[in-house]
Amino acid sequence: MNMPRVTTEVLQAIRRSKKPSSKADIVRSTGFSLVTVTEHVETLVRSNLVIEVDMGPSTGGRRPRLLSFNAEAGYIVAVDLETTHVQVGIVDLNCSILASKASDIDVASGPKAVLEHIKEMVFCLLKENEIETSLIKGIGMGVPGPVEYSTGLPASLPIMPGWDRYPIRQFFAQHFQCPCYIDNNVYTMALGERTVELASEIDNLVFLKIGNGIGAGIICNGQIYRGSAECAGDVGHINIGHDVLCYCGNRGCLEAIAGGRAMVRRAEQIARDGQSKILAEILLVKGKLTSGDVKRAVLESDPVVVEMVRECGVLIGNVLANLINFFNPSLVCIGGGFSQIGDLLLASIRQAIYHRSLPLATRNLLIQQSSLGEKAGVIGAAVLTVDEIINDSLKKTASGIFSFY
Amino acid sequence: MNMPRVTTEVLQAIRRSKKPSSKADIVRSTGFSLVTVTEHVETLVRSNLVIEVDMGPSTGGRRPRLLSFNAEAGYIVAVDLETTHVQVGIVDLNCSILASKASDIDVASGPKAVLEHIKEMVFCLLKENEIETSLIKGIGMGVPGPVEYSTGLPASLPIMPGWDRYPIRQFFAQHFQCPCYIDNNVYTMALGERTVELASEIDNLVFLKIGNGIGAGIICNGQIYRGSAECAGDVGHINIGHDVLCYCGNRGCLEAIAGGRAMVRRAEQIARDGQSKILAEILLVKGKLTSGDVKRAVLESDPVVVEMVRECGVLIGNVLANLINFFNPSLVCIGGGFSQIGDLLLASIRQAIYHRSLPLATRNLLIQQSSLGEKAGVIGAAVLTVDEIINDSLKKTASGIFSFY
Repeated sequence: MNMPRVTTEVLQAIRRSKKPSSKADIVRSTGFSLVTVTEHVETLVRSNLVIEVDMGPSTGGRRPRLLSFNAEAGYIVAVDLETTHVQVGIVDLNCSILASKASDIDVASGPKAVLEHIKEMVFCLLKENEIETSLIKGIGMGVPGPVEYSTGLPASLPIMPGWDRYPIRQFFAQHFQCPCYIDNNVYTMALGERTVELASEIDNLVFLKIGNGIGAGIICNGQIYRGSAECAGDVGHINIGHDVLCYCGNRGCLEAIAGGRAMVRRAEQIARDGQSKILAEILLVKGKLTSGDVKRAVLESDPVVVEMVRECGVLIGNVLANLINFFNPSLVCIGGGFSQIGDLLLASIRQAIYHRSLPLATRNLLIQQSSLGEKAGVIGAAVLTVDEIINDSLKKTASGIFSFY
Repeated sequence: MNMPRVTTEVLQAIRRSKKPSSKADIVRSTGFSLVTVTEHVETLVRSNLVIEVDMGPSTGGRRPRLLSFNAEAGYIVAVDLETTHVQVGIVDLNCSILASKASDIDVASGPKAVLEHIKEMVFCLLKENEIETSLIKGIGMGVPGPVEYSTGLPASLPIMPGWDRYPIRQFFAQHFQCPCYIDNNVYTMALGERTVELASEIDNLVFLKIGNGIGAGIICNGQIYRGSAECAGDVGHINIGHDVLCYCGNRGCLEAIAGGRAMVRRAEQIARDGQSKILAEILLVKGKLTSGDVKRAVLESDPVVVEMVRECGVLIGNVLANLINFFNPSLVCIGGGFSQIGDLLLASIRQAIYHRSLPLATRNLLIQQSSLGEKAGVIGAAVLTVDEIINDSLKKTASGIFSFY
């Protein structure tokens, strides 16, 4: 068998184990021989990706050396870009966030301004945490739309003028000497969610992001599923038969009626129509509403706003019910900024799913709010990057050049 | 690396190559070393699964031995059971049908009667083709509904009374000394379709069966995707908002309005209402209608029947459009008995998909009629079985017992 595949499998066995592994553990989990495991463990220890930790208990003979993944072998810059908001994190190789910053931005101000702003945030974080730029081993970034993953170039999106095939990787290459990976941020969110204890055992997962728009990230057999044109999960433009015009030019798209942007617009209409005293007052003061205002009205049991959010939840749940019949996942995770509106939205989604999905498909289905909340995207971008740089390093190891350090 | 994985990979490289392979070809396609390939090729030649064929051209040194998969190393019994129809085939290890038989049955008459009838068909085929029972190396059977694949037990289905967890494998074990695999027949159809030249390059495929009901088989990253409760693709009960009662107890299920059973029922109503002269005449003579009668009325351009079929196509296409946005496949294949109604149905499905799916998702999407037609299920059941028995044999090879012969 060729070298990088075996080395990668040995490393992944060590990484994924919840406790330090003996070589015998690795033999059991990979199916490789002890000779093979020993050879590849030595390469990994030399590379500093694996370290020896305390000795395991003796099973009669010598006490075995235990092996552990070296999460401090470097750091990752992880970026989660939304249309109106960005989060940046410095993350270790175990994908734990060491430090992070968030900022409002407008993605429509174009890639140059937005990326320059992100770069400043990164340098600020590095300085505050006294981390040398040379310790950054990879950059991972999620963007709010489809990406050609192999090149990192975003697809054309009406909500992101100027970003069509913009070379984001080249921008970062001017400032960092490390590889950079760009992906649709709903895919990275799904990947992030899968690091949570419960979800890590789950092979088939749908992560539904309710942000300004609506999109889904799919984990299939444990891997991100991107689809043939790398636009899988683009469920925001599923037609639900209403007559509202969407920015995409079609009528009746799910996100044009039940997405975050639509919810805020409807809440503003409710305020202007005098149907909600709370929202009318906020609108008068601020001149516009946000998801936080909608959440507040729901918490204060404003009946018209509650009805509107419930209706959005049912519309989203109806679409999910169909996708569940088709894809039969074991976990549906509801995330994105607008999912924080509260239990009412989740309850309405669940109600619609249980009403409309097949009993066999929902018998053991978990439907829950994202456990990582607004951190899902940053953590997922780090997960993606760590997997990629490890695979890359090991490919180079095989050809005699080890590049991780 | 453990033995069966390597042996299987070497064998699959030989099987999947379109022409006989040299060891150098196998080294290239697997990434294993020449020493490893040589060792495992010898095991495979001893087992009779691989044979040496004519010598390849010299590239300067000795002319290389070429290796080929031995498709005659045994035969497979492949069964495609539908609710009103069954097909049985004797198939070689390349999944080419040597002989087949079809018969009308009623699945509601229960498993004992139906399986007894299938067994008679198999023995008749073996006798006619002078094939010894001992040469049958595996039995593969598709059934019209969800199956617990690891045990081969069908799930409970209202249209299949008596089949709930019926031990089909044990029935065949009384008559044949070989393993038996049972799967949802829309999954086997998808697998069958993937053997066709064009589709074999395609990783993500949705096979939509329009039979009496409607179901989808999903190929994801080249493999059957069964889902977490093994009911993925159950799209016949997706709610499309009509008021028709489905046998499942819900209202508005796709197959209750646009499935084959529904189309025939609607055609009979059209005939009784005097809206189609052709169908009224057939109904008078036969007392009932079939898909063939609907097809004939469409071919004769009977306007009311054409309108009904077109409407069914659009409803099916609308559901597919949503699934395409979500799953982003590169091929959607329309199969099953009622797909033979003609180009009108396919055209209406395509129209709805292009109207409603995202342009990025349909840019390179192929939407076509199944190339295998009514043979997709039999061929797919054979593909499933050959893959399984080869994996099984090689597992046993690894533990020192080679069981294929």
